[in-house]
Amino acid sequence: MAIIDGFDKAFENKIRLGIMSVLAANGSADFATLKSLLELTDGNLASHTRHLEEAGYIRCEKSFIGRKPNTTYMITESGREAFAAHIAALERFLQGCRS
Amino acid sequence: MAIIDGFDKAFENKIRLGIMSVLAANGSADFATLKSLLELTDGNLASHTRHLEEAGYIRCEKSFIGRKPNTTYMITESGREAFAAHIAALERFLQGCRS
Repeated sequence: MAIIDGFDKAFENKIRLGIMSVLAANGSADFATLKSLLELTDGNLASHTRHLEEAGYIRCEKSFIGRKPNTTYMITESGREAFAAHIAALERFLQGCRS
Repeated sequence: MAIIDGFDKAFENKIRLGIMSVLAANGSADFATLKSLLELTDGNLASHTRHLEEAGYIRCEKSFIGRKPNTTYMITESGREAFAAHIAALERFLQGCRS
């Protein structure tokens, strides 16, 4: 059906959509920032970032800030393309709804 | 997170979004029409319409056309409101992505 073509299954969930929109806008964000922006528990955020990592749309880097472990997530090139395609599909869907 | 507020969990799945957009535009559609528009199997369409019926967003009427059973789906008032709210949330999300 033309109106819903091009939707990416990986972004159906709104939390994953939120993670991608933060990373698309900022390039990267650490775990604590994403958790606070999206108002999630550790487990919930970890499960959604894992899903996006497995899709190859984001990657993470683990480091230490002083003695505290820090995880930073970055959008990948393929993530950026997939997110842009999904956003374009959403735009087409909304245009279809309006017309 | 403001950018993903107002998304309706019932419409995360794109098939349910497709069903709702057809019913919002046309008021009603029968099973065969939805199945063909959305390119679905009987079982898949039935599972998504059941989900939307349970949410109170659509209702169905079963009748006979000649000897053939016919199921028609209609959008409910609460379905229309929920779909409009979801569309508005998507619009806000896209505006956030663009800005």
